[in-house]
Amino acid sequence: MSEKNKIRMQLQCPMPKLEFDVITLGHGSGGVLTNKLLDSGVFDLLSNEILDERHDGAFIELNGKTAFSTDSFLVSPIFFPGGNIGELAINGTINDLAMCGATPKYLSLSFIIEEGLPVKEFWDILVAIKFACEKAGVQVVTGDTKVVEKGKGDKIFINTSGVGPIHPRANISAKNIAIGDKIIISGNIASHGMAIMSVREGLEFDSEIESDTTNLNHSIIKLIEEFGESIHLLTDPTRGGVATVLKEIAQSSEIGIDLSQRDFPIDEQVASACELLGLDPLYVANEGLFIAFVSASKADALLAVLQQDENGKNARIIGRVVEEHPKQVIMESNIGGKRVISMLPGEQLPRIC
Amino acid sequence: MSEKNKIRMQLQCPMPKLEFDVITLGHGSGGVLTNKLLDSGVFDLLSNEILDERHDGAFIELNGKTAFSTDSFLVSPIFFPGGNIGELAINGTINDLAMCGATPKYLSLSFIIEEGLPVKEFWDILVAIKFACEKAGVQVVTGDTKVVEKGKGDKIFINTSGVGPIHPRANISAKNIAIGDKIIISGNIASHGMAIMSVREGLEFDSEIESDTTNLNHSIIKLIEEFGESIHLLTDPTRGGVATVLKEIAQSSEIGIDLSQRDFPIDEQVASACELLGLDPLYVANEGLFIAFVSASKADALLAVLQQDENGKNARIIGRVVEEHPKQVIMESNIGGKRVISMLPGEQLPRIC
Repeated sequence: MSEKNKIRMQLQCPMPKLEFDVITLGHGSGGVLTNKLLDSGVFDLLSNEILDERHDGAFIELNGKTAFSTDSFLVSPIFFPGGNIGELAINGTINDLAMCGATPKYLSLSFIIEEGLPVKEFWDILVAIKFACEKAGVQVVTGDTKVVEKGKGDKIFINTSGVGPIHPRANISAKNIAIGDKIIISGNIASHGMAIMSVREGLEFDSEIESDTTNLNHSIIKLIEEFGESIHLLTDPTRGGVATVLKEIAQSSEIGIDLSQRDFPIDEQVASACELLGLDPLYVANEGLFIAFVSASKADALLAVLQQDENGKNARIIGRVVEEHPKQVIMESNIGGKRVISMLPGEQLPRIC
Repeated sequence: MSEKNKIRMQLQCPMPKLEFDVITLGHGSGGVLTNKLLDSGVFDLLSNEILDERHDGAFIELNGKTAFSTDSFLVSPIFFPGGNIGELAINGTINDLAMCGATPKYLSLSFIIEEGLPVKEFWDILVAIKFACEKAGVQVVTGDTKVVEKGKGDKIFINTSGVGPIHPRANISAKNIAIGDKIIISGNIASHGMAIMSVREGLEFDSEIESDTTNLNHSIIKLIEEFGESIHLLTDPTRGGVATVLKEIAQSSEIGIDLSQRDFPIDEQVASACELLGLDPLYVANEGLFIAFVSASKADALLAVLQQDENGKNARIIGRVVEEHPKQVIMESNIGGKRVISMLPGEQLPRIC
């Protein structure tokens, strides 16, 4: 999110006057303080008919094949260039649903707050959540707020779960991957991870590296409507990066994958930051990025459509599924050598999402 | 859960031999170690066709009116008399769905683990989760495992979210509450909170106070099948206890509630423990308990059925909805005096669920 967008959002949503400046244990007790927090106007940001019922669960309507996904977000720091933990949590679950070929519709939102979190920070997170929901066209319909003692958490953790109907033309499954499938990536790699790392390491660049966190659902549905079952698999390379995700798929589906390093799109500044920190961008987390396995005959057409999309301007074909070397991912380097790609071995970047 | 049950469960589920004794940061990285944990056999406990797909989300089928709920569980200690955080997390969300008049069907399961958690403890939690799911007839279909640094969490937090179809005869809404409705409680109050507090305070009794954590869905559905829309509202008095929940309902629905203290069922030992610690059992958390607002004409019949149920042996009518004193809950004490019931004021029992 650009600085301008952030300011616009904050101007549209002035924080209500509250009797308290920080979140305390009592706000998670279920008693008077929890109700004060719920009634403070803070949660009015997310108001909708279903959520406002305030029952133990939400009443929704779903018909037919549905995707259901969950993720907990513990990114540190909670505010970073390009966004904060709030929109990350919304976009993350939205994108997991989109990777199933679903239209994300209803989300749950659960906070675990460390006591002492300034209400202003909580507010800024909620504002980001509100706008992320609006952009994606989803509603938060049920939630939970718990508080832990100082030193038993880290500012705020957020869990989102979500459901949405699977598009009738979608048929996404690793079982559909076929020899010859082209592997398409929707944009520049490694931006989210390097945005977080730049803050942690205090790196400064000509212009700030921003997280790519965004909702991919509209872009995905457009592709499914046009290309239907020619899209065999969709996945978003978050934790562990592109390399880990592709290696996992190769292993579990027992296919071979050939990649070409020169085809990987990466922002120059992100590439420099990776080099500076000795990180391989193939293993760095992404948030607003997806990988599609597409039947060879439709790949070029799909790529052309994707490149017209705001989330696909830098999309490229980065590889293909091959009969040789099942379970192996092999990358041809810029200078022609070949390298076997393995999973992220350890804990390169903890708390990245 | 009795000691005997616990031993039976552990015998049925011997832990696989693992290369690691404790959960480390790398197990949450999304890379090799995460995959080692996923492939270690630990998660095989929860295996089912949908979960085993291991996609970014689960593919499920839902038709019509659906309930959707979420809760994060941070109970401390994570093992307590009568259960552990695993079954608490499963039963908690199952019961929230049941309170909507739904049959819980699919759950998501998300772990936030503090590095250093012994794998044996994680295993015991998963075993409890497995048996709680089987008892309730639900499946875990999607999940997430994240790890935080030592001192940034507290052993393990669990989020569960769930969905399930609403029973066609259910019509649960605070809007349906009517003057004259009887208020029924399904059993003894304050057991869960006092089981936790006894451990924290090192209290010892003749026989151990056990948490009442259990799944209420089968009991609720049976009542809905028989009494349909005569059941106006269902709610489970967890955090904040019976008093807070009833006061919330009185306030938001602008009704008066009269309670009779002598009708409240409570285990003698739990009552003594409350007295010893200076806690009012009306404010102590429950887990396997529900409150029903039932039309006056059906209340006695419903109570009779409920008292035949394993979760309703101690069920009682504890009060009624009155026209007088809207928004107020008034309790007649054992000796005839009247007392105005307010919400739990502060943080009586943090981290109780």
